[in-house]
Amino acid sequence: MKAEIITIGDEILYGQTVDTNSAWLGTHLNAMGIEVTEILTVPDRREAILDALKRASSGHELILMTGGLGPTNDDITKKTLAEYFGADLKRNKEIEEQVKALFRRWNREAAAVNLAQADLPENCEALPNPLGTAPGMFFHENGKVFASLPGVPHEMQAIFRDELAPRLQKLWKLPTIRHYFVMTAGMGESDIASRLRDFEECLPENVNLAYLPSLGMVKLRLTARGRNGEKLDPMLEKLGRELMPLLPDIVYYSGTDEKMSISKAVGQMLLENKARLSTAESCTGGKIAADITAIPGASHYFEGSVVAYSNRVKEKMLGVRSETLEAYGAVSEQTVKEMAEGVRKRMATEYALAVSGIAGPEGGSPEKPVGTVWTAIASPDGVQTKLLHLGGGRREIIQLTSNLTLHLLRRSIQRNEEGR
Amino acid sequence: MKAEIITIGDEILYGQTVDTNSAWLGTHLNAMGIEVTEILTVPDRREAILDALKRASSGHELILMTGGLGPTNDDITKKTLAEYFGADLKRNKEIEEQVKALFRRWNREAAAVNLAQADLPENCEALPNPLGTAPGMFFHENGKVFASLPGVPHEMQAIFRDELAPRLQKLWKLPTIRHYFVMTAGMGESDIASRLRDFEECLPENVNLAYLPSLGMVKLRLTARGRNGEKLDPMLEKLGRELMPLLPDIVYYSGTDEKMSISKAVGQMLLENKARLSTAESCTGGKIAADITAIPGASHYFEGSVVAYSNRVKEKMLGVRSETLEAYGAVSEQTVKEMAEGVRKRMATEYALAVSGIAGPEGGSPEKPVGTVWTAIASPDGVQTKLLHLGGGRREIIQLTSNLTLHLLRRSIQRNEEGR
Repeated sequence: MKAEIITIGDEILYGQTVDTNSAWLGTHLNAMGIEVTEILTVPDRREAILDALKRASSGHELILMTGGLGPTNDDITKKTLAEYFGADLKRNKEIEEQVKALFRRWNREAAAVNLAQADLPENCEALPNPLGTAPGMFFHENGKVFASLPGVPHEMQAIFRDELAPRLQKLWKLPTIRHYFVMTAGMGESDIASRLRDFEECLPENVNLAYLPSLGMVKLRLTARGRNGEKLDPMLEKLGRELMPLLPDIVYYSGTDEKMSISKAVGQMLLENKARLSTAESCTGGKIAADITAIPGASHYFEGSVVAYSNRVKEKMLGVRSETLEAYGAVSEQTVKEMAEGVRKRMATEYALAVSGIAGPEGGSPEKPVGTVWTAIASPDGVQTKLLHLGGGRREIIQLTSNLTLHLLRRSIQRNEEGR
Repeated sequence: MKAEIITIGDEILYGQTVDTNSAWLGTHLNAMGIEVTEILTVPDRREAILDALKRASSGHELILMTGGLGPTNDDITKKTLAEYFGADLKRNKEIEEQVKALFRRWNREAAAVNLAQADLPENCEALPNPLGTAPGMFFHENGKVFASLPGVPHEMQAIFRDELAPRLQKLWKLPTIRHYFVMTAGMGESDIASRLRDFEECLPENVNLAYLPSLGMVKLRLTARGRNGEKLDPMLEKLGRELMPLLPDIVYYSGTDEKMSISKAVGQMLLENKARLSTAESCTGGKIAADITAIPGASHYFEGSVVAYSNRVKEKMLGVRSETLEAYGAVSEQTVKEMAEGVRKRMATEYALAVSGIAGPEGGSPEKPVGTVWTAIASPDGVQTKLLHLGGGRREIIQLTSNLTLHLLRRSIQRNEEGR
């Protein structure tokens, strides 16, 4: 099955908006076994849209449009589709009710122009939009499917998942797709791959493994295809359980939540252990605390942080000894150790972490080049330190430090759990 | 002048990579007076590329390709272009030297496959790549320009700016384009527009004004077109000077740096005033400190921060009185005032800021709904507080608080400067 994605909108051509919808659709169609062979962006202009439809309909079974479905006059996708199919627009009563209900929820009155969103080409099936007023449209003509979705990403994604994908799966008897994620931190893609060589070779034919790397982390995605979705989930879970002992030191999450971050995983672990955390940050300048508190409910386990950017603050607010700073410098094992102990004691938490390093671009030296970062984890069992050598620019070094230090904290909590 | 952008790469169609190049090119071509009427993504496949070139060459004066120029076998843009033009590949000695020099800088030996990057279709002009090994190519055939640039964004942007854009401007006698930016914080787009109504009406015909809003900020972009670039810059500066008195309370920067952030502008101001800053953060959880320290050299003016997520830390590390917390709560004018005074005193800085609020999604109440944020700025002249009512999700409320509080700090420093 081959697909063309057509993105409709002047704002994409002007460069005001980056087209992220096509990448999202590319991933999801590909996972369903539908190959996207072309992505085309055209303006909100009748002739351009008609021409694009004509060209796309040869050589593709699915022509999937996004954008141009707003209530204003510049959005002409719907009436151009009606013209393409020689169909009349007809008010869809169910959609009209949904639009009215949405406006009631917003405590506003639906204007005529909003209700007109329910006027659809008579040869299409409406794809209800749970999050907005523009419904999607599904046309099945001469063995081909034409679908039109709104351009607002979260509306587009919801309609695709709940309405369009199931119709395509049923119509073309496509296999069901299930994903399972194993999130790792602290090891590179190629090292993980060499550990998983045997595991990968023994994967069932309907399962594949993808490596999705980001700063200091690699997300492993197991994808299974099959007729029976209910059988796929336990199979993936079983594979996940087989995979875990191969990577015991680096996995921080396994399951179906595609967006599980290391800070969220650490937060859940602290919650389960009824333990609280404090941090002392120099080179990260508050980024670790910001990553932790980006998670709703962080106040249940996060006490606070001292961002000690100057040596004076390290001494005064964290109790680092001036002799330590003089003898070893701010970026040293001794200093991060005292920072971690200091914040742990002053904020009275079970766990504390501390970092001090050189994020650059200035401040490096031959002995301590940019990217040198000392980290410390203080726990009820004492303090553990680790030296990191990181690459990249300032932004990357700061984010890598946050990710990898949270990973070290996670390991420390785990060891304490096991030790009990 | 009309352009089609052709993006070449399987990774875009699979959705592994979001095509950000096309939006960047769309903005820059549009500013030059070249209209992008179509963006097409095709796979790394000979027939698909040839077909795309054939289609694009009718109706467009510029066919601009990105991607598919790597040294490996799957990248076939170059040889497909040679086939399209019936041209042979020929080693370009200058480019070969540049590739060798690049590898010397990396302390590595250039392999044959790397040197082959200098083999170019004989009918093209090479566009040197200052940042990588794949040069761009410029073809001028039958009054049309075909250009091919590498897909790596910073390489593509450098070659476009330094090599391609000047050639197009010369060839088609396009007007020169100059930009000037006025960055504002703390006021919405429509309020600014109503203040600027007269200013906009009196703009010269070759100048236009764009409003580019983001969280709590609006970037104003003045764009001038003309034959003589040297005359445009003083004209834009003059317009900028006329604009400033209309927005004295909200402008934090004016000039040609498109990426000037509020944290960078505040940092420069602190540097100029030889003043230091400390912060005390509750609901932002370290994000303000992280925004400040994202700027290289922040250690010259930033002392540190206390992220006081719990009331205990507010008392112990900032000296907020327990009676204040009991009587007024953590999200109150009295509490942020004591937080700002406390951190200013303990970190011994000229300026300090403090925030305490409800970032959500939990924690709101009828009196203090999610988005209620108290801010305080402590300066040598005392403490000023302000209550914000912010919308959006947790992430937006945190970032809005950071942007708007840094704006309030900037105003406070400005008042102190003027008072001297």
